[in-house]
Amino acid sequence: MKTRDRILFASLRLFNEQSERSVTTNHIAADLGMSPGNLYYHFRNKEAIIYELFLRYEQRTRDFLQVDTTASLTWEDILAYFRSIAGNIWEYRFLHRDMEQLLNNDAALLQRYRTFAQEVIRSGRQIMTVMTRQGLIAASDAELDALIINIWVITTSWAPFLHSTAVFGELDTDLSQEMIQRGIHQVMYLLKPYLRGDAVQALQSLPPLYA
Amino acid sequence: MKTRDRILFASLRLFNEQSERSVTTNHIAADLGMSPGNLYYHFRNKEAIIYELFLRYEQRTRDFLQVDTTASLTWEDILAYFRSIAGNIWEYRFLHRDMEQLLNNDAALLQRYRTFAQEVIRSGRQIMTVMTRQGLIAASDAELDALIINIWVITTSWAPFLHSTAVFGELDTDLSQEMIQRGIHQVMYLLKPYLRGDAVQALQSLPPLYA
Repeated sequence: MKTRDRILFASLRLFNEQSERSVTTNHIAADLGMSPGNLYYHFRNKEAIIYELFLRYEQRTRDFLQVDTTASLTWEDILAYFRSIAGNIWEYRFLHRDMEQLLNNDAALLQRYRTFAQEVIRSGRQIMTVMTRQGLIAASDAELDALIINIWVITTSWAPFLHSTAVFGELDTDLSQEMIQRGIHQVMYLLKPYLRGDAVQALQSLPPLYA
Repeated sequence: MKTRDRILFASLRLFNEQSERSVTTNHIAADLGMSPGNLYYHFRNKEAIIYELFLRYEQRTRDFLQVDTTASLTWEDILAYFRSIAGNIWEYRFLHRDMEQLLNNDAALLQRYRTFAQEVIRSGRQIMTVMTRQGLIAASDAELDALIINIWVITTSWAPFLHSTAVFGELDTDLSQEMIQRGIHQVMYLLKPYLRGDAVQALQSLPPLYA
């Protein structure tokens, strides 16, 4: 593995386990048995590492959301989306835990994130139009407009919600898969009233999303 | 007005208009034509002001959510709840804008907020049980459990969502009533699939919530 990738890999693990806030570039260098100078040769500061990790997260999300709007979608395809998105959130969970703070600290990241968010919401809305056409869901345009925004807000606000309220118990530094699973459960309940046909059955037998 | 109340009143206005982050105790003292020393006599630091403002916000929310679970609720009562809650959020909007950061900076506030959040979610769930009994909504226990959590997350995450995504346009330092109105709209769409009887009509003719 290239040094640059090794730094990114270790940073992601440390940020997820200990939260971005409490991990410095010195911690990352020490974890890799590397001098801070060597780390700075590849990334000028922690913000540069976070920015690069965000780009990778963004690229993976974009890949998942490529959808052929003329294709025939099944409920299995929809579940596959959810599985991919849940897995991606799990892998980059520190981003969701500390997003507000990260965006406040880096104007370039904020700009990039806004473009990303708008694109994902548009893609999600398109997928819903296809689902409606296929008879998987039944909802008006106004309902779908509200639904896609609610799905985005629940998904991206879930980690801060768990931390700020402790409604499902105090949160350790790291998030558990069970905690993210509960978030998926909440999103499924947003969709549930609009599901039709096979989709209703599929939701009821929804297996854990980490396969 | 007592000096202590004047300080709280001015702080709330400045935090709302300019965000909590960019307002110092010196700004607050200057706004009141008061020496910083006089301000410190009443509040030892900005955190103490924020904590006191939170207590007032909390008390008002608690008053709204007192509900006689044996009473007969109409859809008009439900709308009155929403109006009160929206008005309260509007008045203390800086809290919702910067909550994550405020909670990270003050362990006592985090503890207080958690107790408050758990209480509000319990009360909201109770109100829904009453609404179900009255035939205003039709939903299973599992649906109501998911619904109350989704309502809480959308309500409290709305301001950070507007800021981080700019989906509804770039946010000024202050939030507009229109922006909060859109959040209420999103919450109404969470409820909509479960509404029965008069409630469906009432939602469609929903007036702006700032009367």
